Formats: sequence, C-alpha cells, structure tokens
Amino acid sequence: MKTTKGNGGGVSLETLASLCKRRGFIFQSSEIYGGINGFWDYGPLGCELKRNIRDAWWRDVVLCREDVVGLDASIIMHPRVWEASGHVGGFADPMVDCRACKKRYKADQLCEEQGAKLVRTETGFALPDGVTCTACGSKDLTEPRAFNLMFKTYVGPVEEASAAAYLRPETAQGIFAQFANVLAVSRQKVPFGIAQIGKAFRNEINPRNYTFRSREFEQMELEFFVKPGTDKEWHDYWVKERLAWYEAIGLPKASLQPYVYSSDELAHYASACVDVTYRFPFGQQELEGIAARGGFDLGQHQQFSGKSMEYFDQETNEKFVPHVVEPSAGVDRIALALLCEAYGEEWVPKAGVEGGPMAAEPGREPPDGYEARTVMKFHPRMAPIKVAVFPLLKNKPPLVEKAREYHDVLRRRWPAFWDQVGAIGRRYRRQDEAGTPFGVTVDFQTLEDGTATLRDRDTMRQERLDLDGLVAKLGAALG
Amino acid sequence: MKTTKGNGGGVSLETLASLCKRRGFIFQSSEIYGGINGFWDYGPLGCELKRNIRDAWWRDVVLCREDVVGLDASIIMHPRVWEASGHVGGFADPMVDCRACKKRYKADQLCEEQGAKLVRTETGFALPDGVTCTACGSKDLTEPRAFNLMFKTYVGPVEEASAAAYLRPETAQGIFAQFANVLAVSRQKVPFGIAQIGKAFRNEINPRNYTFRSREFEQMELEFFVKPGTDKEWHDYWVKERLAWYEAIGLPKASLQPYVYSSDELAHYASACVDVTYRFPFGQQELEGIAARGGFDLGQHQQFSGKSMEYFDQETNEKFVPHVVEPSAGVDRIALALLCEAYGEEWVPKAGVEGGPMAAEPGREPPDGYEARTVMKFHPRMAPIKVAVFPLLKNKPPLVEKAREYHDVLRRRWPAFWDQVGAIGRRYRRQDEAGTPFGVTVDFQTLEDGTATLRDRDTMRQERLDLDGLVAKLGAALG
Repeated sequence: MKTTKGNGGGVSLETLASLCKRRGFIFQSSEIYGGINGFWDYGPLGCELKRNIRDAWWRDVVLCREDVVGLDASIIMHPRVWEASGHVGGFADPMVDCRACKKRYKADQLCEEQGAKLVRTETGFALPDGVTCTACGSKDLTEPRAFNLMFKTYVGPVEEASAAAYLRPETAQGIFAQFANVLAVSRQKVPFGIAQIGKAFRNEINPRNYTFRSREFEQMELEFFVKPGTDKEWHDYWVKERLAWYEAIGLPKASLQPYVYSSDELAHYASACVDVTYRFPFGQQELEGIAARGGFDLGQHQQFSGKSMEYFDQETNEKFVPHVVEPSAGVDRIALALLCEAYGEEWVPKAGVEGGPMAAEPGREPPDGYEARTVMKFHPRMAPIKVAVFPLLKNKPPLVEKAREYHDVLRRRWPAFWDQVGAIGRRYRRQDEAGTPFGVTVDFQTLEDGTATLRDRDTMRQERLDLDGLVAKLGAALG
Repeated sequence: MKTTKGNGGGVSLETLASLCKRRGFIFQSSEIYGGINGFWDYGPLGCELKRNIRDAWWRDVVLCREDVVGLDASIIMHPRVWEASGHVGGFADPMVDCRACKKRYKADQLCEEQGAKLVRTETGFALPDGVTCTACGSKDLTEPRAFNLMFKTYVGPVEEASAAAYLRPETAQGIFAQFANVLAVSRQKVPFGIAQIGKAFRNEINPRNYTFRSREFEQMELEFFVKPGTDKEWHDYWVKERLAWYEAIGLPKASLQPYVYSSDELAHYASACVDVTYRFPFGQQELEGIAARGGFDLGQHQQFSGKSMEYFDQETNEKFVPHVVEPSAGVDRIALALLCEAYGEEWVPKAGVEGGPMAAEPGREPPDGYEARTVMKFHPRMAPIKVAVFPLLKNKPPLVEKAREYHDVLRRRWPAFWDQVGAIGRRYRRQDEAGTPFGVTVDFQTLEDGTATLRDRDTMRQERLDLDGLVAKLGAALG
C-alpha cells in the first residue's frame, strides 16, 4: 500500500493559508478591521500546535537536561541593555524613499529585485547606478538611510528621551543581563545554559511569506555558556542536537538543510554560525540559527554595566568571561514548517471499498471508488488534538453514553475531541484536516465486548481494542 | 505532631523578595543597569512556577472542557480595536503635577493619602480643597489631567498618527476581535468560551507592591459567551468554579475572599462583578475579576468594524449578539500569592533528634536539638521542582551510580533535581527553600534491597520505598 508523508513543503502558501484560516490554525490579526500588516493570531488548533512546540523544546532543552535552567524575562528592559547589545546603534535596515511617488523600500531588497547589489561605503550604504523605483520608474531616490528595527515606546507619563524604551527584538539579551544572578542561584557550573521562550518584536519594513517574517514573533533561545577555547566543540554539539530535534518533531532530513556561514558572513565576534533551514514553499529558509558568539555579549554587558560577568572555575582556579553558543529558534517558523510538512492531498477509498490512501495527482479526479481528502500528517507529539472520540450514531443513547465513558478516560491524559455530528466518514475527514492522529469509534460491538475501533490517520487502518488497549496504544504513540 | 501550613500571607514583602532573589524565583528586570521600575524577571524556579500556573489553568479551563477553545492573539493589534473597546478614549488615570517641585501624582492616590476624595466633574475630575503636594507642601497643583495607560508605539517606518499602535492593556480584546472567526471554525455552540494566556502592558504611574502592580504582566482570560438572559446563572457558575480552582492550587479558603461589586461600582454595561481576592501582606487584593459584561464588547466591535457578531441559534431560530462572562486572572499575582502562602519559618529537629517541625516563634531561638528552616510549602502541582534525588555520599561511585539510575527514571516523568554536594541535611534545607515536595536519598541499603528514602517536605517524615513504589507514590501526589 502506497502512502504519502505529507507534502514536504510542496503546498503553496495560498492553499495552506486557506486551510489554516478555515480550520482555525492561523488568522490575520484584527481581521475585522482590515488586518494589520505583519501580525498574526493563532486560532484553537494553531495555539495548541504552538503549545506543543514550546513544550517539546522546554522539555528537551531544559527539563530533561541537568545543565540548562529556564528564565522568563520582561519584554521591556532598561534601554541600556540595547546600547550594550549594539541594537540601538546597529540594528537598522538601510531604507530608500522614492521622491516622486513617496514609496519606501528596503535598500537591499530593491537592489536585489533589479539584479544589483547594495554598495557598502565607509559611512553606510549607497545605491548602485541604474536602480529605479519599482512602482513608478523614477530615478529620483534618496540615499539609503538607517531605520532602526526596534519598536520604541515611553515608560512613565512623559514622552521624553530619558523615558524611551524598546520592545525587545530578541529574547537573548534578557538572558545575558541576568547571567550573574542566574549563576549565583542555580548551582550550575560552566558549561551550562539558560533558556527562554517569549515574544520579540521587529519593525520589519516588508513583512512577508505569511507568518515567516512578521513584526511580532516568538523565540526559543538557549544561551549555552562555555569555557573559552571549547566554543567549537560545543557549537558542533548543538548543531547536531538541534538538527536531531527537528527530525524528532516530524521534519524529515530531506526537508532540512544546515547552512554553514562562510567567514565573511560572520559577525566580527562570532567564530561559527550554522542555520537550520527548512524547504518552505518560498525557498530554503531559516528555522534556527546556531551561533558561536565568543565572549562578545557578556563582555559588552560587563563594560556597559560595570558589573563583573566573570566566572570562577573552582577546579582550575581560573577566572574568565564565558563564551556563548546560542541556538536561537523561531516558534512561528517551526509552526509554519510543521504545517507545510504535514499538508497532504490524497485519494482515499470510499466507505466499503478496499484499499488505502494514495497521493492525489494534481488537477485530476480520483479513480472510481475513491475520494479526495486533505490530511495534516503532524507528528503525534505535535498534533493539536491527539484523539477524537465518536459515537457511531448520536441518537442511540447507549452508544453516546459508552463513547462518553471512553472520551472521559482518554481526555484526562491527552487533548481529546468529541464529535457526534454527521456521517462517520465526514467526521474522520474533519479530523484528518485537523491532523488528529487517532480516531476512536464506539459502535454496537463496543456495547457487547468493550472493543472500539481505533483508526490511524495516515494508513486509515482500523483495529478493535478495548479501553485498556486504547490507552496502551495511544500511550506508546503519544508518550 | 504539630505542623504548619505555610504562612498564609503573613510573610513581609521584604523577606519574601529576599528569598525570591536568593533562590532565583524573581529578579528585578535589568538589575545590572539599576533596574526599570515596574518590570520583573522570573528566574529558574520562578519561571517553572509560572509554567505550572499557566499549565494548570489551561488544562482545567481549556483542555478538560468541551465548551472552551484556545486563542493566541498578537500583542500589537489594529488601533481601531482600542477605539472600539473604549481604551483610547477612557483608559486613563487622572494625573496632577506640582508646579513648584514638578512631582507628578495619580490624582486619586494623592487625595486618598490626604484623607480626601477626588471630585468627579462633568468634564472630568477636580482636586478637593486643601490637597497639597506631598513632597514639598505646595498648593500650586495642576488640575487633574487624563493620562492614557496604554503604551504607544509606531508600526512601519514613519512615526505619524496613522501608524500609531498600542501594546494591549488586556488580552480580552484579541478574543472579541476574533470571535466570529473562532465561532466559524470551532463547531461550538453558545454557551462556549474562548481562552487566552499572554502578556499585557499598562503604563502605571506608580508600580508598587513588588510584582503585584507592574507595567508588564501576564493574563489568563476566559471570555465565556452566553445567551442574553442567562448572564446571572453563568456568572454564578464561574465565580464558584474559579474560587474552587484557587483552592485546588493551594490557596486555602481562609486566605481567599470574594469581593462583590455594588451596583454603583459596576461599569455601566456590567450586571455583576466579583473579585477573587487574596490576603497579601499589603492587604486583601485582587487575583482575578469575574465580570458579567453583557453584550457591550461584541456590540462595540460590531459597531466599529461593521462586521456582524450575531450568533444564530439553530434550535430556537433566534439571532443574538452573545453576552459575555469574563473570568480574568493575573499570572504574576497568582505566583505572588502562591509564594506568600507557601512561605514558612519553622523549627525542625536536628539530625538524630526525634520529632517534627513546629512553627518558629518570631525573634526567639529554636529549643535545644532544633534548628530553624525556611520552607516553601507549595501545592505539589505548583512546586517548580517535584523531586530531588541525592546520593548519600558523592565519593562512593556505587551510590552515585544507583542514584543516577533513580534520577533518570524520575526525571522522565517529573521535573527532578540532582544534588550530591554537602551534608544531606543541608541538601534537604536547600530543597525546602525551593519548595520541592519530595526528596529521595539513595544510601547503602539501596544497594542491597533497592529501597531508597522518600522524605516528605512538610512532615519531614521518611519512608523506604523501592523504585516502583517511589514512582507510584509520586504519581499519586503529582499526577
């Protein structure tokens, strides 16, 4: 029997976005007011998907390790944090305005679209000859000017420079700023890590590719502090760990690709950087960056705060500012990759027809006895709903009552869904689209011998199991 | 044997804050830069405590119910959301400046401090006669002027009025704005709820009472949509549910008190409101408000967006804008209440002395054979670490190896801690302060018969159990 394994990123963003809205994975933020560019909301299924991503990361990176502890720092921090980190001075995109039609562009994107390359000058950037406004064709463009990507606000009642503060553009700096406190309380020794999950904000000029590049997003960052000189060894370790993690949550090797930075692509303080990229519909793009950042971050905060960031090694009697290896992942990007990877269109046998699912051929009708289905083949660990319970018929009280009994037992352990409305085939289809890996149908035989039908989302195979058997089977698959 | 049950809010904020910093529950945000008023970070133990609060709420309010679904909306939304909600026009504190010394006050607080009451006028507010500047005594104060509590920023490259946006001052409006989308995708019928956990921001003039009133905080809000006319019945239901929930996470009835709003305290659209209050060191203060808000919120968004918020009742063929009952809780306040409630100072028998813990008497020394301990008596469900595993001696490899074996089994199920450093009594004391409910000590007898010592944090009683017995006992207590 031939089965498919999701679409491996082959789905178009339009098709995916349509399913995501229809099934409640992702909505445009403030849609009733025409939306707001670069902001997205996660609906009932989407927020469970994100919860599963966060929980898996926290469990694997923090709870199951002895050498990593967690932190939950505020989004708004003291503005000096962003001076120390370099974000106030350097976290800027060069922008170009068209004087004729007033349209504004990111300079590098404008150049790239026209097959040119932005010129780096001593003081900043310049446009190469021949670049024109894409909208109106005018050559009357301003020189590229820096535009800081941090959202700015004012804390306290007065809008004055001394009250300015920023929405964090990354969670990492919260970790660096609390390094000494965490070191003091956590009984950790270098090497060890501090992990954080939380929102970050970047005032992107051109948010794009659905949720991929948005202005508000969620990061999962680990700062792993190591002894200087061991950076490479730990960087290699984390690249391997993180690649394996993506496979463990259902992104196959074939869709993932490490991108190794060349030395001229690296920040001046970094010794290595590898991006974990995924084959999105819009190209192979970053899910996570794993950078060996040396002692830059702690060194900057030591300098700007005047507080020591040194670590005293009791075994060797050495004192040093730890270096850091930083695996930094995007929750929204992982969610988007899981959605892309899971999406499949298949032909499946109608009720009573023998056979299993096969990949649908685009633009063609299914063969006789088959019908089309859309199925989200999430890894069971990532699926928003783990199991759906169906009484075969809703107007037979004993069936409903027995199904309720099974549902009550299952939902105490796993996110479970109850559906008694419509033909059983349609109920399966709805759960296929939600990506629910298991369906349990309670029928007349259940009333006799206690066995219910367990249906597998991917193979559509069914087997009969009693309640203990169901719990054991689901337990093995879902943990 | 007399035991105590934590301090029931009797601890002072200073003592608590000191423990919280020393043990890594809570740090001042950006402390190395002198801090930033009204912002707090949660350290390794604090962020696990918050995770437990969120997870318990999500499990009890969303996952274990069939009539509630989740949402995860963006913090920055279309500014029209806040016009519709009334926050742009009305979410303001009246402020007063001293013209002499330039100090600024919240008008109602200034009046209250001086035994007066702010006067409501037709156009706003006025100071009653005799109120003076607390700092310099001057009578030269400005009239009260509205100061909006929303943090403002600009989305996109230009700082102009049309680009202004706000950090949400509550998560609720994200739910109202997506009501129609969620209704369309979730197969729910009224009555049903939409729940959300997330950060919210209020530019408080005077953040105070440690983390209680801060500028960045986390909310857990449920909007429960009901048929008009059933508001009271559902409001009563949720008040009862929510009070019971606080008891279930370890806040005893004696420390909780419902505060019922009188009719002149209610917003004009609300028919009832009850606050769940907790006996904090600074007084009986709100953890959660449960309001019956009528059709105001959906009605406002229907009016401002021009999009229908009506629900069609298939059974009665009626169409109506649902009313809403809103239980709205603060994660940080719950965390603070749990910390206050858990805190205890006790006298406990030294090693080899018979007896159990007793409440310490302030300012006195413990009796002979006893020593003082600080213990955080969190409900096991809320405790950041569930179990600590200790090899009796760290320099006996067979003990360490066996303890590792037990630790590996336990930490696959629960957040577990490993500690092999120092005398066993000191290790127990450290876990008492962290609030870890169980300690497992592997000793020489373990090598013989597989039994280890399980120590109960509160009673300090010990019993010997083999690994299966430990898992069963912890499973029963921790779920």
